[in-house]
Amino acid sequence: MSYAEQMLRTSPTNPPVDDQRLTVLAQAIEALFDCAQACTACADACLAEDSVKDLVRCIRLNLHCADLCATTARILSRQESPELARVVLEACALACKLCGDECAGHAAHMEHCRVCAEACRRCEDACRQLLASLEPPKLR
Amino acid sequence: MSYAEQMLRTSPTNPPVDDQRLTVLAQAIEALFDCAQACTACADACLAEDSVKDLVRCIRLNLHCADLCATTARILSRQESPELARVVLEACALACKLCGDECAGHAAHMEHCRVCAEACRRCEDACRQLLASLEPPKLR
Amino acid sequence: MSYAEQMLRTSPTNPPVDDQRLTVLAQAIEALFDCAQACTACADACLAEDSVKDLVRCIRLNLHCADLCATTARILSRQESPELARVVLEACALACKLCGDECAGHAAHMEHCRVCAEACRRCEDACRQLLASLEPPKLR
Amino acid sequence: MSYAEQMLRTSPTNPPVDDQRLTVLAQAIEALFDCAQACTACADACLAEDSVKDLVRCIRLNLHCADLCATTARILSRQESPELARVVLEACALACKLCGDECAGHAAHMEHCRVCAEACRRCEDACRQLLASLEPPKLR
Repeated sequence: MSYAEQMLRTSPTNPPVDDQRLTVLAQAIEALFDCAQACTACADACLAEDSVKDLVRCIRLNLHCADLCATTARILSRQESPELARVVLEACALACKLCGDECAGHAAHMEHCRVCAEACRRCEDACRQLLASLEPPKLR
Repeated sequence: MSYAEQMLRTSPTNPPVDDQRLTVLAQAIEALFDCAQACTACADACLAEDSVKDLVRCIRLNLHCADLCATTARILSRQESPELARVVLEACALACKLCGDECAGHAAHMEHCRVCAEACRRCEDACRQLLASLEPPKLR
Repeated sequence: MSYAEQMLRTSPTNPPVDDQRLTVLAQAIEALFDCAQACTACADACLAEDSVKDLVRCIRLNLHCADLCATTARILSRQESPELARVVLEACALACKLCGDECAGHAAHMEHCRVCAEACRRCEDACRQLLASLEPPKLR
Repeated sequence: MSYAEQMLRTSPTNPPVDDQRLTVLAQAIEALFDCAQACTACADACLAEDSVKDLVRCIRLNLHCADLCATTARILSRQESPELARVVLEACALACKLCGDECAGHAAHMEHCRVCAEACRRCEDACRQLLASLEPPKLR
């Protein structure tokens, strides 16, 4: 069992949600940390490429995505404010999509972009699955 | 002139926007760093209060808000993806509102919450002013 | 293979180090992200305990450790400045030790502290193993 | 009065230190946030330069320095563990020195590097002043 899941299962705050939901949350947290790491490393690998001048947008999206994934993982690790969790997850899924699309465009000739695109896709999916499992927002 | 404004004025990416717009962006970045600091310190001050048990929601919102303000400031410091900047600013304004409201509720008897509520309000305003100055999103 | 290891193996900067060394680095990066997550979640779980007043030092060390582990993981994900990597690893190992000792003291009656103490120990070990594998600093 | 100083003055943890010491701490926290912002923006401005290929080390040191300054500012904003604060401040002063030296080397032909070098110098000085004001570590 991952640390993320162990920590969720041992928190006294944790509402008695069904196991499946808790697993979806734990998987999202893990995917977010994986993506934050992959994006940080991909930005650095892009900087080392001869073609760095053509990779400026990729590097910037990598840095955006790394920052937002790390913050989203932290926010999901605290049991407070599902309303905020929802909008942050939406923003993070967009960052993963933008970065994943950009990296996918370089994947044919750069292995680090191929691996990073995969991490972004998995993270975007995990964010969207978690969003789907959350209660719908109250009508105002 | 603040470092945020100096850095914006000396970036080669910087589009020739009018001065007023650049000032709004620089002020938002400064307000975000101020709010990130105030929220980090307010969480710590709440932990030192005898009434810490009644401040759990305040501490959690402080931590959420500090993380999201810091990430938003970084994203705004990079000249890429206004589409992402927009949704992150919306999320951050919500975090500032939630945290500012909570701190305001304790402001009468805790000075650190009064100061932090003020930093949250100023930051929420700065985020909304910047949002108002951005180009409207394209219709899809 | 973890994303951290895949990213290291596909970076063009990566010096032709032996496989064992690269594995030590990848394991440190993973342990750092695990520890950052565990500490963030442990701080939140402590806040939900009835005995929160007795857990203030634990929460603060959790927050210190989470921040420093996340930053150390990012710095190790960039191929620049082994001199800086060394001092940051030393500081991070100390944060893990302080937080691991504190959590271990609560482990008998709080499961989240037991899990977090384990994550801190593993991370401290991983930092020290990586330090041992680095070239010795030059004499001044 | 800066938010950093207001927050320090209103924290119930705050030991009755003399005013001068509290001012040194508040100035360090402000200099750290300024430097984190300047370094994030300088990395982005370097990416937009035609000569980006010659600025790879500068960008990486900017990113290292931004991360470590932000984490150091957070750690100093919490009243716990002067032992950890000391080693983190030492590491951060080194990051500021490395990044400041690198940026200073480009300052003659890039304004953003000139401004960033200044922010790094001021931050390094503020870290060292704070280190000098801390109690000496206990002999082991």
